[in-house]
Amino acid sequence: MLKAGRPQEEMRRHNLGALLRQVHLGGPISRAELAERMGLNRSTIMALTAELTSAGLVREELPKENGKAGRPSLVVRPESERVYVLAFDVRVDRLVAARVGLGGTILDRREAVRARAGADLDDVVGVLAEFGRQMDGGASPGSVCVGVGAAYCGMIRPGDGTVRFGPNMGWVDQAFGAELGVRLGLGLPVSVGNEAHLGALAEHERGVGIGHRNLVYLHGDVGVGGGIIVGGKLLDGDGGYGCELGHMIVNPYDGRPCGCGSRGCLEAEVGEQALFDAAGRSGLMGREGVRAVVDAAEGGDVVAREALHRIGDWLGIGVANLINLFNPGLVIFGGMLREIYRGSAAQIHDRVAANVLVISRERVRLRTAALGDDATLVGGAELAFSKVLANPLEVLAEATADPVAGEREALTRTTS
Amino acid sequence: MLKAGRPQEEMRRHNLGALLRQVHLGGPISRAELAERMGLNRSTIMALTAELTSAGLVREELPKENGKAGRPSLVVRPESERVYVLAFDVRVDRLVAARVGLGGTILDRREAVRARAGADLDDVVGVLAEFGRQMDGGASPGSVCVGVGAAYCGMIRPGDGTVRFGPNMGWVDQAFGAELGVRLGLGLPVSVGNEAHLGALAEHERGVGIGHRNLVYLHGDVGVGGGIIVGGKLLDGDGGYGCELGHMIVNPYDGRPCGCGSRGCLEAEVGEQALFDAAGRSGLMGREGVRAVVDAAEGGDVVAREALHRIGDWLGIGVANLINLFNPGLVIFGGMLREIYRGSAAQIHDRVAANVLVISRERVRLRTAALGDDATLVGGAELAFSKVLANPLEVLAEATADPVAGEREALTRTTS
Repeated sequence: MLKAGRPQEEMRRHNLGALLRQVHLGGPISRAELAERMGLNRSTIMALTAELTSAGLVREELPKENGKAGRPSLVVRPESERVYVLAFDVRVDRLVAARVGLGGTILDRREAVRARAGADLDDVVGVLAEFGRQMDGGASPGSVCVGVGAAYCGMIRPGDGTVRFGPNMGWVDQAFGAELGVRLGLGLPVSVGNEAHLGALAEHERGVGIGHRNLVYLHGDVGVGGGIIVGGKLLDGDGGYGCELGHMIVNPYDGRPCGCGSRGCLEAEVGEQALFDAAGRSGLMGREGVRAVVDAAEGGDVVAREALHRIGDWLGIGVANLINLFNPGLVIFGGMLREIYRGSAAQIHDRVAANVLVISRERVRLRTAALGDDATLVGGAELAFSKVLANPLEVLAEATADPVAGEREALTRTTS
Repeated sequence: MLKAGRPQEEMRRHNLGALLRQVHLGGPISRAELAERMGLNRSTIMALTAELTSAGLVREELPKENGKAGRPSLVVRPESERVYVLAFDVRVDRLVAARVGLGGTILDRREAVRARAGADLDDVVGVLAEFGRQMDGGASPGSVCVGVGAAYCGMIRPGDGTVRFGPNMGWVDQAFGAELGVRLGLGLPVSVGNEAHLGALAEHERGVGIGHRNLVYLHGDVGVGGGIIVGGKLLDGDGGYGCELGHMIVNPYDGRPCGCGSRGCLEAEVGEQALFDAAGRSGLMGREGVRAVVDAAEGGDVVAREALHRIGDWLGIGVANLINLFNPGLVIFGGMLREIYRGSAAQIHDRVAANVLVISRERVRLRTAALGDDATLVGGAELAFSKVLANPLEVLAEATADPVAGEREALTRTTS
């Protein structure tokens, strides 16, 4: 419902955010191109750019010589070194942290490989917070952190970043987001999202999904998750727990047991353990293990090849169901499913041809994630950037203010 | 992208449409209540109501005595007799047509039961156009038809209402919407939608789904279709062909053949033929046949009961998959699936309990369609009303103008 109020002020904020988003996602861009893409006239673009420049979010430069005559349009660039976020990615076998500049540049990064079992909240948050503080401390003077985002391999309550269910790490109702925020001590809240949701957002904004309004992203870690973009937006459902395509039943008769307690879930039939069991490779583990099986199949190993065909057939059923349901333009295989797709694309395509309605598959394409293993981390960074893109000047002003003074003021507001 | 332009004018049109929608969907409502619901002040409501009243879309009346002291707030009512749409519903075994007044009142209605095979475009359009002209001719003088909508049991191209695929009637690429528009001769375009999409919209706006932002509607006719509301909007996908939940593979091993050419689709396992085969009732057909099997099971017929348990188990797998994917607040069983649900609710609930992630089923409810067999027809009417609700004054002015003059003017515009 549009309310009578301050439409001019809201439009200005909206346009500032939209311009900053263009520069953040599209990279250096001329004022002329911005005017064209945003449907605004040049003088409006100039005014908006001036505001963002004086806030230190973008800068304007003369473009490199292009050989054309006449005065060139100034190019607007994100202030990537000055304005950044911290992004974290909690995978089953690895913790990743990065400092990411406006525009999406990874300025700094840390990784810790870890044992699969027994990592509790305290351990994980301890490692991530230490990484975060190191990277924040290494930022150049005058630069400013405008957000913190984290991807986690489990079901996340959107409001407070609580991990409701992280089966592969044995977490139930752990206050991950709140705890990480406290341990970082930056005075910033931590936004947390499901890793596959964030991988989908990242591929949609910066990867192979750019320009698609409807896409399905399947993410393989140890389990299988999903992120589905419907009409340009992530499908979240009533509680934020949508897109659990890994728990679609594909094998109702003699299905393998799944970590969720059910049987025959897509995750149980195409997850890494299903592959290792089918290939008779009990000693393997993780992304490297999956790669080894696919390499063996390509090298002529019959058992490995049959294992991949079996996995590909189950995966194909799942993909066919998803195309019938979502009529997407694109299906993306991310995480370890990139390897699986390399080894079983033919089976997946066969299932799509056999089981998807002709009209629903007229225009769909199947692709692997363009951002590779970084899709989920990049998604965490984009989650962290979302506030400053929604309201650039105010969020930057808050982030730049003395945090202790800020807390004092917040306290006064609360108690008065 | 918000453009600089005429924000006041756009806001006025938006608010007029929003107010008319309140009255259309919610029924008679006081100005005070409108002000509260729309977050606008009373003087704005009064001005908007005055415009809609003078256009003849609503009228204001004193409410009935409520026993309270003081001056009562005027009640705003839709002009149901004066402003109407024509709605059509093409089911496999029946053609339905109705004249529906603003506010959703069915003012007039016609039905033709028909043989299942062999109805071609010309037959169907002929019957519907005749019904439409009869009902339009019966409308009181001074009343105005503001739209035409139709629900069809097949895949529809949104732009022009072409039936791309109607397997149960053997239609492929038939220009249904255009042809019906010509044969009606009212000078109005015909909007066509898939029956299950429209059933979902109807239940969302006027049925058991009111207030739900995420719901799954399963519709059984001869086949099984779906309409899924994601974040308050119908999931349509890239081409408008989304929600084909009837072609989700649930039985990959010994699945029954499906009308789509595949095997083991939800539709093949839970459609009416699957039920009649499982119950050993080859002579039955249609909604009455399904009802007979469910009645027999309730009366103690063991074969009928086992047939329903089998169907309910497959349906439960489909429903579980959909809850995991969509995290909806509500799953609705419509069309003949209302009967199936009555006969196999226990099996469906068992599958949901066994196969849906605990967190994803925390708040979901399973219900039957509140609008009963009229859900798809009501959806067709709402599709027809959508234009006048988006832009009340202009659409009404166009509909009221002399249609021949209007066509002449359109021709002039095109050729100049």
